[in-house]
This record gives sequence, structure tokens and C-alpha cells, in this order.
Amino acid sequence: MRIGVLGTGIVGTTLASRLVKNGHLVRLGSRTVDNVAAAQWVAGHPDVSGQGTFASVAGWAELVINATGGLVSLEVLAAAGAHGLAGKVLIDVANPLDFSAGFPPTVVAHDGLSLGEQIQLAFPDALVVKSLNTMNADVMVHPRSLSGSHSVFVASDHSEAKQIVSALLQEFGWTPGEIVDAGGISASRGLELYLPLWLSLMGAMGSSHFNVAVVR
Amino acid sequence: MRIGVLGTGIVGTTLASRLVKNGHLVRLGSRTVDNVAAAQWVAGHPDVSGQGTFASVAGWAELVINATGGLVSLEVLAAAGAHGLAGKVLIDVANPLDFSAGFPPTVVAHDGLSLGEQIQLAFPDALVVKSLNTMNADVMVHPRSLSGSHSVFVASDHSEAKQIVSALLQEFGWTPGEIVDAGGISASRGLELYLPLWLSLMGAMGSSHFNVAVVR
Repeated sequence: MRIGVLGTGIVGTTLASRLVKNGHLVRLGSRTVDNVAAAQWVAGHPDVSGQGTFASVAGWAELVINATGGLVSLEVLAAAGAHGLAGKVLIDVANPLDFSAGFPPTVVAHDGLSLGEQIQLAFPDALVVKSLNTMNADVMVHPRSLSGSHSVFVASDHSEAKQIVSALLQEFGWTPGEIVDAGGISASRGLELYLPLWLSLMGAMGSSHFNVAVVR
Repeated sequence: MRIGVLGTGIVGTTLASRLVKNGHLVRLGSRTVDNVAAAQWVAGHPDVSGQGTFASVAGWAELVINATGGLVSLEVLAAAGAHGLAGKVLIDVANPLDFSAGFPPTVVAHDGLSLGEQIQLAFPDALVVKSLNTMNADVMVHPRSLSGSHSVFVASDHSEAKQIVSALLQEFGWTPGEIVDAGGISASRGLELYLPLWLSLMGAMGSSHFNVAVVR
């Protein structure tokens, strides 16, 4: 699949590397065509990768991943353009955390709406799926590196999009039983508000290499 | 131990019944001395239980559990009185959920402080431990009713209080490895903000009989 990853930080490049390893064609999107982080990553993956502006990458891609900082995601997606996102699965991995007042950060919501919901509202023709925002980048793509079964959530108003994301997650190593359908895109509210607990646990355990499992 | 449970709802009476079963003396606290729900519960546990006002129960108890609605907890604890809480472990099980605008509820914070933090600030001589607020009442006291290992969090600025709560949790059936130290009382912020995810999962799974496990 042609996958466009918006964002060139640790989350974006970690996802991009795993996707390339799994046989996909991947381009990294950034504000400028000559972003250095993107260029370095592309140099490590010749033939199967590329880089470009948010708009050019989104327009090229069949599936788009928002791996930008949650506070700038709406602006980035506006730059990518509604036309480039229309009819495509858009995986929103971002967390709208405001660290401006120090630690712990605030989870930013506008009119009570999570970032995932705001993105779906702003781009009604995109098939937004909130997923993977509840763990660190390495755990996202190497779920078998933890000691037992654990969970990754998917939240979306589009069931067919959830199935496509579920298939990508299984390529990462997640088992079908570990992929937990959290409901519609409104569930991204809870998925984003989970981050303060994740941060507390990271602090208490001294490691970000963990996750939670839903146990019934 | 003499344990005072403030609140006569499902959480309060479920905890109280389990504590009595485990050999503790338990009194239920409520606004009035003749609360009907408390009287019915006491009638089912003669000899080892009683009821009274928030103040009389807190004053009698060696350990106090706040099982009131999160939006009235500070008012209830003020009625219980700082003197009755001083020097005692106070387990805060409450969730400050505001359903006044419908579902999903808002997690209420004042000046960015969680309920657990506000209680510790308002009652500096109490040893506040946030715990058990992340699951339904039956799972709290019957952890072995789920299919696998799962987690209960404790957050407090008082390590000796965490140990006392840990011992009570083990009497409920929690194993030491399932009791996760989430850090100081500031971690109650994340524990309370987890509730919207819990509510989404409850809706998606059609059951409240689940919990999460921390997997490393």
C-alpha cells in the first residue's frame, strides 16, 4: 500500500520503518520538501520511500497516518488538504498534550471534543481511526516485545476503516484478540484522556516500555 | 480493623460487605443517622456493623473509605470533619464525573487538581490513598472473577498508607504483583481521567465486568 506518514519525529519514523519492512511504500510528509529528519530516514530506505510536503504526501498516499504533535495536527492536516485526505483511511496517532505549564501536561480539548473527533469533523470525507496513541513508538510496532498479551484500541465511525487498520496492526505483530474496538470516534476522548495515567505509570515504573491489556 | 465507609450506594455497600466477610468491623456513614440503605445493609450484618452520620462514623473508624459521589465528596468529608480523619488512612474511591450535560460525562477538576489531590489538600492530616476507582464494585472485591491477571492502582504521598491499603486489597484477593504503585497523590489525576476510556470500553463491550492490566 502507498502510506503517507505526516510527521518526522520518533513516532513517525518508527511507524514508517516498520511499514517499509512490512512491504509498503512509505513517504514522510513535513512542512518543507527538504526536511532533514525525513531525508535521513529516506536515505536509509532507498527505493521504497520518499519525502515531500504534507500536501504532496497525502495526495500520493492511499492511507495517511497523522504522527504530528497533537497541538499542531489540525493545522498540518489543513496543509495536507481535504482533497488529499478524502475517501482515505486516516490513522490519528497524535496526543494533544500541552506541556506549556510544565508536567503533568494538560490534555487539550476544544468544546469538549477530542482531537480525533475534531479531525473527523474538520475532514468529513476522511475515514478517521484513532489508534496507537496509548503507548510508546517501539511498543506500537513491536507488540511482542512485552511479556504478555496487551491491547491496542481502535476508535472510528467507519467499520471498514477499522478493518484496514486492524490488518496493518496484525502486520506489526498484534493478534486479532489484542485489537480492541473502543467504539466510534467519540471514544478517542477517553483514549486521549488516558495519557495522564500513562505518564504517571511511566514515571512510577521508570520506563515507557509497557502497555495495558483489557482483561474480561 | 474498624473501617468507616462513607456512602451507601453500590460501591459503599459492596466494599462494606466484603470487609465484614474479611473480619473487619464496618460502619456505613451517611448524611442522616437513619439512612434507609444503610439500615438495610446493617440488618444483613448484625453484630459486626453499624451506621451513623459521616462525622460519627469517621470519628469511630481507624480507616475511612470515601465511596460517595465524586461531586459531593469534599462536602461529605467536610461533614465528617478534619478531626475525625486526622492521622487515618483515607481511601478515595470516588470519581468526579459530571453527567449534567449527558453522556459522556466530564471529569471535573478544580484548578487542574484531581479530586484525590483536592481531598489531600483539604485534609492535610489524613493519609489519602486513591485506589479502586478504575473498575466496577464487583471487580474491586472479587478480582479473581476475571479471566486473568489485572491491575489495581494505588496513588498516595504516604508510603505507609499504601502498604495498609495493599494489605486490604490482598484480603480482597488481589495478588501483590497486581497492585500497581502509580506514584504520589498527583497520580490520581490520571486515575480519574481514565474513566472516560473505561466508559467507552464498557459501552463497546456491553459489560462493566472488565479491567485493565499493566503489562511490561
